Amino acid sequence: MTTDQMSARKIMDTVHSEGRTALTPSECQAICSCYGIPVPKEGVAHSANEAVRLAETMGYPVILKIVSPDILHKTDAGGVIADLSEAAQVEESYDTIIDNARNYKADAQIVGVQVQQMVPAAQEVIIGGLTDPTFGKLVAFGLGGILVEVLKDITFRLAPVNRDEAYSMLDGIKAAELLRGVRGGDPVDRDALADIIQKVSQLLTDIPEIMEMDLNPVFVGTEGATAVDCRILVDFTEKVPVFRPSQDEILTAMNRIMKPDAVAVIGASAEEGKIGNSVMKNLINGGYEGEILPVNPKADEILGRKCYRSVLDIPGKVDIAVFAIPAKFVLQTLEDVGKKGVAGAIMIPSGFAEIGETALQQDMVEIARKHNIRIMGPNIYGFYYTPQNLCATFCTPYDYKGAAALSSQSGGVGMAIIGFSRTAKMGVSAIVGLGNKSDLDEDDLLTFFEQDDNTQVIAMHVEDLKDGRTFAEVASRVSKKKPVVVLKAGRTQAGARAAASHTGALAGNTKVYEDILQQSGVIQARNLNDMLQFARGLPVLPTPKGENILIITGAGGSGVLLSDACVEHGLKLMHMPQDLDAAFREFIPPFGAAGNPVDITGGEPPSTYQNTIKLGLEDDRIHALILGYWHTIITPPMVFARLAVETIAQAKEKGIHKPIVASLVGDVEVEEAAEYLYDHGIVAYPYRMELPVAVLGAKYTWARGAGALS
Amino acid sequence: MTTDQMSARKIMDTVHSEGRTALTPSECQAICSCYGIPVPKEGVAHSANEAVRLAETMGYPVILKIVSPDILHKTDAGGVIADLSEAAQVEESYDTIIDNARNYKADAQIVGVQVQQMVPAAQEVIIGGLTDPTFGKLVAFGLGGILVEVLKDITFRLAPVNRDEAYSMLDGIKAAELLRGVRGGDPVDRDALADIIQKVSQLLTDIPEIMEMDLNPVFVGTEGATAVDCRILVDFTEKVPVFRPSQDEILTAMNRIMKPDAVAVIGASAEEGKIGNSVMKNLINGGYEGEILPVNPKADEILGRKCYRSVLDIPGKVDIAVFAIPAKFVLQTLEDVGKKGVAGAIMIPSGFAEIGETALQQDMVEIARKHNIRIMGPNIYGFYYTPQNLCATFCTPYDYKGAAALSSQSGGVGMAIIGFSRTAKMGVSAIVGLGNKSDLDEDDLLTFFEQDDNTQVIAMHVEDLKDGRTFAEVASRVSKKKPVVVLKAGRTQAGARAAASHTGALAGNTKVYEDILQQSGVIQARNLNDMLQFARGLPVLPTPKGENILIITGAGGSGVLLSDACVEHGLKLMHMPQDLDAAFREFIPPFGAAGNPVDITGGEPPSTYQNTIKLGLEDDRIHALILGYWHTIITPPMVFARLAVETIAQAKEKGIHKPIVASLVGDVEVEEAAEYLYDHGIVAYPYRMELPVAVLGAKYTWARGAGALS
Repeated sequence: MTTDQMSARKIMDTVHSEGRTALTPSECQAICSCYGIPVPKEGVAHSANEAVRLAETMGYPVILKIVSPDILHKTDAGGVIADLSEAAQVEESYDTIIDNARNYKADAQIVGVQVQQMVPAAQEVIIGGLTDPTFGKLVAFGLGGILVEVLKDITFRLAPVNRDEAYSMLDGIKAAELLRGVRGGDPVDRDALADIIQKVSQLLTDIPEIMEMDLNPVFVGTEGATAVDCRILVDFTEKVPVFRPSQDEILTAMNRIMKPDAVAVIGASAEEGKIGNSVMKNLINGGYEGEILPVNPKADEILGRKCYRSVLDIPGKVDIAVFAIPAKFVLQTLEDVGKKGVAGAIMIPSGFAEIGETALQQDMVEIARKHNIRIMGPNIYGFYYTPQNLCATFCTPYDYKGAAALSSQSGGVGMAIIGFSRTAKMGVSAIVGLGNKSDLDEDDLLTFFEQDDNTQVIAMHVEDLKDGRTFAEVASRVSKKKPVVVLKAGRTQAGARAAASHTGALAGNTKVYEDILQQSGVIQARNLNDMLQFARGLPVLPTPKGENILIITGAGGSGVLLSDACVEHGLKLMHMPQDLDAAFREFIPPFGAAGNPVDITGGEPPSTYQNTIKLGLEDDRIHALILGYWHTIITPPMVFARLAVETIAQAKEKGIHKPIVASLVGDVEVEEAAEYLYDHGIVAYPYRMELPVAVLGAKYTWARGAGALS
Repeated sequence: MTTDQMSARKIMDTVHSEGRTALTPSECQAICSCYGIPVPKEGVAHSANEAVRLAETMGYPVILKIVSPDILHKTDAGGVIADLSEAAQVEESYDTIIDNARNYKADAQIVGVQVQQMVPAAQEVIIGGLTDPTFGKLVAFGLGGILVEVLKDITFRLAPVNRDEAYSMLDGIKAAELLRGVRGGDPVDRDALADIIQKVSQLLTDIPEIMEMDLNPVFVGTEGATAVDCRILVDFTEKVPVFRPSQDEILTAMNRIMKPDAVAVIGASAEEGKIGNSVMKNLINGGYEGEILPVNPKADEILGRKCYRSVLDIPGKVDIAVFAIPAKFVLQTLEDVGKKGVAGAIMIPSGFAEIGETALQQDMVEIARKHNIRIMGPNIYGFYYTPQNLCATFCTPYDYKGAAALSSQSGGVGMAIIGFSRTAKMGVSAIVGLGNKSDLDEDDLLTFFEQDDNTQVIAMHVEDLKDGRTFAEVASRVSKKKPVVVLKAGRTQAGARAAASHTGALAGNTKVYEDILQQSGVIQARNLNDMLQFARGLPVLPTPKGENILIITGAGGSGVLLSDACVEHGLKLMHMPQDLDAAFREFIPPFGAAGNPVDITGGEPPSTYQNTIKLGLEDDRIHALILGYWHTIITPPMVFARLAVETIAQAKEKGIHKPIVASLVGDVEVEEAAEYLYDHGIVAYPYRMELPVAVLGAKYTWARGAGALS
């Protein structure tokens, strides 16, 4: 701890001992000074000369104010003179103020005259800090003034922030351009702002008792920035630490849960329609090759498997226990499961916190903690892990193995994931229901999928994060390796939060989630369909090596809509170098348009598509291709699809791997062609322009965040 | 013309005669005064007493300025004194200014001293006018200041605007809240702003030579608003009038074109693969019952029909001629077609303006005008009009008759429309290719579809509007009767426009299109898929009677995502009255949630869905329903679908018609259920929440604009 941190801590101790929840202005200023946050310079002069000396050290203009315990209304007493810009004025004003004070109150005790730096108001900004119930300490940045309060133009990051993150906040507001100087105006001192942002974020981190903090306004000019006003609110209540096993503990448990050797089914049943029956059938019919161990005191055998009265009767090791019994019987059985040394309880039953039975849920978690069991759920459909042919769920088995791991907080959404995945033939490694998230959470799943070679993309439906801070930390790490897609549901729950500070009041739940997920490198899906399409498409596309995107289209109209979609998804249409433009022109009719999009026109034979796609692949200034196919008799859909796949295969042989997406317009035959393309590594959709581009956009969002673009 | 209009015209005449393109500040002020736009009061005093008298009439504070042709730099001469707030100050300042002027330049001719009202700057706004190349005269409104220039917070309307439209502009900016008073601030004088907006829009309309106009800033306070600075740019070049037939002429021609008794095919061919062959086959195979008349000098018979050497050889009347010959032969043949009295030429060939052959296209249009032929195209796939079984196109026949009329400017997009429509079994009345739009345009189509009983919704893909003003006028009228959906392609083409005024520079193409289409009551689709889904869904949904929307869901997770979608699409979740809440609770389990969404929970039997849907239909405080179905064994997808359809049918018998959309989550069986629901009047989608709500949102957008909500 530095000396200054110690001084700051000392101030906090005083506030604590006095039982206050807010700091005084001078305490705020002192804490800022401890952290090197510039505040207006000031000092008390006891003579006109001293006043001038002080003014000269701090720089003009200055303001002089009488300091006297006997004069409360300084202005009325003629005790304030502002806008002094030279020594002579300061000297004269000092004397005037003293005279005025004497005239005002002859017997007033006069301590001296305060000399305070006047900060020029080039641009007002707000820098603040708050304690978010989900994400903990956050730092905030926005423009000052009423207008921005109206437009809510503010951005958040997890505290502390590093230098890059601080600068990203300056660019993270809608009016960012303003800071760069508008209409001939000078740019503001971005370094000074980034510096204050970092320092505020450090202060919040070092002194977690600070709940909310406003530097409002901060005046920033072309050189330097000063926090003119400061407000700090504190809370000294002791916080309950969050339960969080180590990475190793999580992985050990998760590996046993996702890849178990033996699965017990608590409440296994031979009776059609019972959940305990569905789970048994799915385990068996799904092709799981580990041990399937039904537990039911009333049966000797279920679906041809020996049934145990209790999990304790099972001779060997048991990795997971799938619970298919009513909530009221869970606690007793969970004790047994704990004694057996089971790693994970897959808690299908409902009847816990979701219907208000929070005490029951809490009791369950306590038993689990005691025995070191991790709980998935309760109130879930279970989970799938396809590399093990494991369907530990009452839903039907899932057939298409692949690279996407999906999770949902809601059972309904989980069912939609299963239905969509099946109909789209999406390759899936896992589908996991998290339900009430009494214990196992998204960050546990991320930790497992991070090191799971069967998983290449992770897509999560999230209603709330129980521990957003941990999620953000883990997601930041995992998203460097594999894309993490999140659909955050519940935007309407944002609502207004009671908050005593500006920053707090400006922190809508939605915006905080948006900013922190972005900071964590997460791809944010706008809706369930986007989440599913991203999960399906991202593993198909190779990682682009740069930002240059080229559209090759047979339909001018598709080219326009594809360009629109690129703008919407922040993708950059490559500016065409002259030689490349000329090279494309070799292949297209004279009335076609080179440039970008390359419009090969509608009546062209297969060779034109082939030549231009080949060129687009082989020129290494181009990093990604968007194809716009138009159904004609000359180049029918499947002819196009086959030639595209073939051309790409040839490029792959030369070591060329670029992401390619396609939009197919035409009669219904284009549907078969799109499916063929998708199966062969081209993310293709019939009748749609926005969707293939959105998937490519998601790949770019990931690649940029992960630093994967070279 | 009022006296004041005449005065304004007189000023314009002076500007014209002097060959200027800009008005002087005093001319601008004079024109504003002619139209009752408040400008700062001013007058020239020739004595101190007169200065005081002037100041008293206009109200304090005032500013005094020397008026002398010999003193250019007034401030240097000590000729300007501001912030005078009482008579004594004005009197003294008058003398000071005269003295200063004499001291500055002894022989200066002194006209007097200008006394000008100083306007308090409560809030700065911009009110402007511009001449848009597509839409003509527009009025603009935005907040003043650099920040708004950065945030581009400005809104446009076609001039002139009525009172309501002027007020809608005040609410049409993002920072609208600011005008209503923020954080205890007083609201500004909205009436005064609306008044100036109206007056500017009238001025632009009366004096079309005004190309651009800025009132910037306009100062608005709690009472009154004043245009402090004004700039007007003019252009006296004669404008070529736009060709525009009367409504009757359009209808007469369009009725013959869309419902012809006889169709000639110019360039009909017996040879497979030729366009003239495809057109013939489509006409025949499509089941068209009028006369099909092949024209080709080299054949006597084509596909069993007598072939004519020239259209002039055809004995009877011909309504339309479908051109399937190369561009270079079009002009000569079009002369013949004209002589034959054909109403419409369906100009399939390409080779015109789209490849730079603008002169050829112009020649073609001139021939058409001479003979009163309307041209569809050129460079199109043709068109379908299903009520006549008419497939005047080289694409394949379309089978599903229905209520949606669609058009596209691009052939590729047209093919996507056909493919999508076929696969979605969308009922279509017409699909029309407009291509180069050398003559027939979206507003001609709107005029026809407006009175076409076979059409209930019109959806158009638009890249540019040749005459946006006419389109807006017609769309405003038609959209009151039938929903008009527009997909505006080409957002990237917006770019920067060279403009001499602020307003001009702020007018991005995209924002102008957005605002004017909204003003015209058009539903704007964000992408092609939205356009197609709206075209499919809008005719299916009855018009809601009010804003109260209720979500009934079996899956809590769907309920959250459906609520999110409602927020996104501006739909209002009904606040549940206590009695209604209690009524719903009767049907759902105790741990279910009433309120809105009504969460019936996942394990419920069909009767729960049935009872709650019935209640939702029968309580007339509820105006629209969103259903969230969750696939369970207890209530399988088709059971749900049938009960929903049945319940709605029973309500219909009681005269209850409410729009209902549904989101189905579950395994692939929900796809069949969604299709069944859609076929029976419920807009339903599997695995999706945002799409059914988007379609309902489009219905509401239309209903609000058309004043159809009671």
